[in-house]
Amino acid sequence: MNKTYVHGYQAREHERLHDQAGALVDLLHSDTAYPSGSKVLEVGCGVGAQTVTLARRSPEARFTSIDVSEDSIGKARQAVRLAGLANVAFHQANVFALPFESESFDHVFVCFVLEHLAQPLEALAILKTQLRPGGTITVIEGDHGSAYFHPHSAAAQAAIDCLVTLQRDAGGNALIGREIYPLLVEAGFDDVRVSPRVVYVDSSRPHLVDAFTIKTFTAMIEGIREPALARDLIDAETFDAGVRDLHRTTAPDGVFNYTFFKGVARKA
Amino acid sequence: MNKTYVHGYQAREHERLHDQAGALVDLLHSDTAYPSGSKVLEVGCGVGAQTVTLARRSPEARFTSIDVSEDSIGKARQAVRLAGLANVAFHQANVFALPFESESFDHVFVCFVLEHLAQPLEALAILKTQLRPGGTITVIEGDHGSAYFHPHSAAAQAAIDCLVTLQRDAGGNALIGREIYPLLVEAGFDDVRVSPRVVYVDSSRPHLVDAFTIKTFTAMIEGIREPALARDLIDAETFDAGVRDLHRTTAPDGVFNYTFFKGVARKA
Repeated sequence: MNKTYVHGYQAREHERLHDQAGALVDLLHSDTAYPSGSKVLEVGCGVGAQTVTLARRSPEARFTSIDVSEDSIGKARQAVRLAGLANVAFHQANVFALPFESESFDHVFVCFVLEHLAQPLEALAILKTQLRPGGTITVIEGDHGSAYFHPHSAAAQAAIDCLVTLQRDAGGNALIGREIYPLLVEAGFDDVRVSPRVVYVDSSRPHLVDAFTIKTFTAMIEGIREPALARDLIDAETFDAGVRDLHRTTAPDGVFNYTFFKGVARKA
Repeated sequence: MNKTYVHGYQAREHERLHDQAGALVDLLHSDTAYPSGSKVLEVGCGVGAQTVTLARRSPEARFTSIDVSEDSIGKARQAVRLAGLANVAFHQANVFALPFESESFDHVFVCFVLEHLAQPLEALAILKTQLRPGGTITVIEGDHGSAYFHPHSAAAQAAIDCLVTLQRDAGGNALIGREIYPLLVEAGFDDVRVSPRVVYVDSSRPHLVDAFTIKTFTAMIEGIREPALARDLIDAETFDAGVRDLHRTTAPDGVFNYTFFKGVARKA
């Protein structure tokens, strides 16, 4: 195997991974586009995974992306630059202490953020003050209670429940997807419309088996082994059996389901 | 309130109920249509709820609808006649002892049947023999493990689990939706394609709150109270609290989710 071949292989591998990510990106973001000139606040941009998608899909909109982590913002800034995008400004900021004037934005976008907040309703109420009247908010969150699979496994379910417990104890809510509708309504938004986005994976969809079941969901569960055992939420044998059973759902006769929820609402 | 008003109200009520059923019909059947002249076997037609939809959507196809119950067939025949449809023939027959020649049909349609069978794989293999080469099979099933809701309720979950247990003890499988893909593959079908059909209900969708959450799902759970208590699967207090909590999901801030699975495959 010579170096040229390896590079060629890596390029194909990179393309494959990009395709895989593409399936989820379409599922979650294909119906989000902002008009030319509109000002969009992205809350909790992290390392910019969604930022690049947003900014590319709405090249004439102007994005302001914030995150609490200066380190993440550095990575997001680099990702946006590498993507050749120039319509994003970054700021280090906390959603509960925003540095912008009220009604500064036409749209707000929040993805995989509320699940980590102890006060998601208060966050939405603050974000509403940032929107001009008639502006929209878009919220996307997962719901770990939506995960089920074949073959069924009580051990896998117990391992997933550990993540739900750990996130709750950290002040978050891993089951928040199903609550997007009542949260947006209670925060005072109008025209609230929530839709489920199901990731259904069987072996006829090998991209999703790899990108979602293995590298997204199961990897996330594998990542909490240490804190789950340290907190005595589960014994090592059950946890490891659960992870094995999650991998078992990627066999030719396996099936895995997960649902994200996307809500869009308007400020009157 | 005079009689004319009451009739007017009832007509509107009838229309409303029809609209509600319509939402589910579209979700499950909108992508099923059979070509002119094709011969379609509908297995387990029951009282004809799906038969009317099928025959109306494919008026030039010829349907043969079977059920084990002569009584149900009588009702299905009446439903089809009332709908003004003439393209359905009914036969009392068991899927494991079909009276037709092999390769008699261009298409097979199976909806809410496999969940009740102890040998779903064998049933699919038999149905494959009824198809001409190149013909298709369509399978639709629910999955009670896909039900989750807000507010979350352990009692409601326990009541649902009673139904899963009762159905399993009766030889069926209330979680079969997620298994449609492996079952069709193992039965030897080609080009197996399964898609989830999510019923997402919040108070912005009052038709579904009434037609699905209350009158379909919760009513089904309420219907197993007696056998669940008789079999000591649950205590009355927990069961009744579970049913109350299912109704609680129909409040303005409640959310209810359920997923059906639809599989289509081809006989090589």
